[in-house]
Amino acid sequence: MQSQKLDAIVVTTLVNVRYYSGFTGSNGWLVADGSGLTLLTDPRYAIQAAQEARCVAKVVRGPLLGALTTRKRRRIGVEAKRISHALYEQLSKLGKLVDISDAVEAPRYVKTPAEIERIRASVELNSQALERSLKKFRVGMKERDLAAEIEYQMRKLGASGPAFDTIVASGAHSALPHAQPRGERIEAGGYLLIDMGACRDGYMSDMTRTYGVGQMPQRARDIYEAVLESQHAGLDAVKAGKRAGAVHAAVVKVLARHGLSKQFVHSTGHGLGLEIHEAPRLGKACATKLEAGMVVTIEPGVYLEGYGGVRIEDTVLVTETGAERLTQTSKAWTILG
Amino acid sequence: MQSQKLDAIVVTTLVNVRYYSGFTGSNGWLVADGSGLTLLTDPRYAIQAAQEARCVAKVVRGPLLGALTTRKRRRIGVEAKRISHALYEQLSKLGKLVDISDAVEAPRYVKTPAEIERIRASVELNSQALERSLKKFRVGMKERDLAAEIEYQMRKLGASGPAFDTIVASGAHSALPHAQPRGERIEAGGYLLIDMGACRDGYMSDMTRTYGVGQMPQRARDIYEAVLESQHAGLDAVKAGKRAGAVHAAVVKVLARHGLSKQFVHSTGHGLGLEIHEAPRLGKACATKLEAGMVVTIEPGVYLEGYGGVRIEDTVLVTETGAERLTQTSKAWTILG
Repeated sequence: MQSQKLDAIVVTTLVNVRYYSGFTGSNGWLVADGSGLTLLTDPRYAIQAAQEARCVAKVVRGPLLGALTTRKRRRIGVEAKRISHALYEQLSKLGKLVDISDAVEAPRYVKTPAEIERIRASVELNSQALERSLKKFRVGMKERDLAAEIEYQMRKLGASGPAFDTIVASGAHSALPHAQPRGERIEAGGYLLIDMGACRDGYMSDMTRTYGVGQMPQRARDIYEAVLESQHAGLDAVKAGKRAGAVHAAVVKVLARHGLSKQFVHSTGHGLGLEIHEAPRLGKACATKLEAGMVVTIEPGVYLEGYGGVRIEDTVLVTETGAERLTQTSKAWTILG
Repeated sequence: MQSQKLDAIVVTTLVNVRYYSGFTGSNGWLVADGSGLTLLTDPRYAIQAAQEARCVAKVVRGPLLGALTTRKRRRIGVEAKRISHALYEQLSKLGKLVDISDAVEAPRYVKTPAEIERIRASVELNSQALERSLKKFRVGMKERDLAAEIEYQMRKLGASGPAFDTIVASGAHSALPHAQPRGERIEAGGYLLIDMGACRDGYMSDMTRTYGVGQMPQRARDIYEAVLESQHAGLDAVKAGKRAGAVHAAVVKVLARHGLSKQFVHSTGHGLGLEIHEAPRLGKACATKLEAGMVVTIEPGVYLEGYGGVRIEDTVLVTETGAERLTQTSKAWTILG
C-alpha cells in the first residue's frame, strides 16, 4: 500500500481472498485500509467466515459493494485484470483506482513450504486415484465410466473434487488435446489418454498419462517414446534462474528431431497451486525466470488427427539445482487390457 | 447490431460463445460483423471447433486479441459485465466499446423447447443419481464418501460432472448453507442435507433434500414441515407475469408465521440453464417479471447455528398457468438409516 500510496486495497477475486484470509466461501471481498484487514461476505457464510477467516469478518446484506465507505478522492488498489469492467466502473465512484493485479498475485507463484506440502499431498492423492482406477479398467469400458471411477477414487481419498474436467480419451479421440469423455467404449489398438487432477485442501494437482490398449502398432510406441524423451528434456531444463521459454525450447528441440514439433500445439506447462493454471506459463516467448519454490507442469503432447494423441505430464517443484518431480506415477510404455 | 449502430460484436464469455456457436472448448471468442459470424480459438481446439461450431472457425496462434482487425473508430459491442477491466482497455484500442451484456444474455433466460428438454434430462439424471446413492447410505458413512458416491452415480448416468460442489452436510454442519463435505461420519439424531446438481450435455440441474438420520426429535420434524410448507407456497406463487420478488415474499410469509423468517438468510431461488446461476434471481427486491419458459429453483432454507439446517429445493419450469415441477424426487419427511 505504501509504495503505491494507496489508501485502500479491495481484493475481489475469490482465490486471492482465500490466499490472504483463509476464507473458502463463494462470496467474499477483502478490504485492507488504515484500520486493518476486513473480510466482507453474505449471511450464508456468517458461520463459516467466523471459523475460517484470519481477520475480522463482516456480514453484509445485499451487494458487498454497499459495505464500502464512500470517502472521495481515495486511491484504491484493485485487481483490474480480474474484475469485470462493470465492477471497475462501480468502484471508480469511490476513488481513483490503481491496478495492482500483479502485486496481489505475485506472492502466490513461489510457494511456501506449507503450500508445497499441500500440493505434494494433492499430487500423491491424484496418483493413488489413478492406480486404484486402473485396477477397474477393462477393454470395452466406456470413457465416461473410467472418468467417473477416477473422480470417485479422488473423492474417496479426500479430494474436494477434480481440479478440472477429467479427460479420458481413447483411439482417435485422444488427438483432441482437451477431449471430453464420451459414452464410447475404449477399444484395443488405440491410445488411452488420461489427464486428471485433484483439488485437495484447496490445492491442485495435474498429471497426464497415455497408455496403449491391447495390441498396438510399433508406430504408436515410437511416438510415445519420442514424447517421453521430450518430456525428460523438459524436466532436465527446469532449474531456478532458467527462463520459462528455455524449458519449452528444450522440449521442442527433441520433438523436432523426431519430426513431431508441428504436432505439438500447446505450451509445455503452467504453474499451479490454488488454481490449476497460474503463472508462470512455459511457452515459446515466455521470459519469466523460474524461481525455487514454483510448482509447474511439464506436459509435451503430440496430436495426429484421425490417429490419436500422446501427452505425458508431471507436476514438479523448481529447486536451486533442478526440478523435484512430485508425480511418482510410472511413465514407462504400458499396455492395458 | 443495428439498434445500437454497432460495426462489430465480440463475445468473449465462454458460456455465451457456446450458446451462440455450439462450441464447448475452454478458449473461444465469437466475432460478429458485416461478414458474418466467426469463432476464434487456439490450436488445441482446431479439430473440436471444426466439429462443433455452427459458424466459421478460425484457429489463432497466441492471444485471440491478435486476430481482431484494428480498423479505427468502430463501435464494438462487448460484455462489459463479464470481461475484465484489463481486457476492456485492450479492446478499447480497436474502437468505441458499447456494453451489450444484457442484450447478449437476455435470450438465454427464456429457454427454447430443445433447452427445456435438456434441462429436464439433467434434472431426471440428478434425481436418479440421488436415488442410487441413497441405496448405499449407511449411518456412520463419511459425508465426503456420500458426496463421492453421488458424483460417481451422476457420471455413470452420463453427466459430464456435477454442476457445483456437491453439498453433503450432517448434524450441526447442515446449518452452513454452503457447507463442504467433511471426513466426519453421518450420525443418527441429526439432519442430513444434500444439495446436488448435474451438468448433462451442457445443461444444469439443482436439487436439495434434507433427511432425518435415525431417531429424530419432534422439533426437527416441525422445522422440516415449516420449510416444506414455505416451499409449497413458493411453488404456488410461480406463474408467468408474476414478479420474482413476489415469489420470495410468499415463502417468507409462511416462514414468518412459524417464527423462522430470520433464519432464512438467502434468496428463494435463481434461474439455471447453461450456468447454475442465471437470471432471474428470486429475492427480496427483485422486480423481474417471470416469463413462460424460464427455469428457476425454489429453495427456502432455515439455518440454526449449532443445531442444523433444512433446505428443500426443486427446479421448476415457469408456465402461463403456474409452475411445472421438473424435480420428481419425493419431499415427504424421511428418516434414513
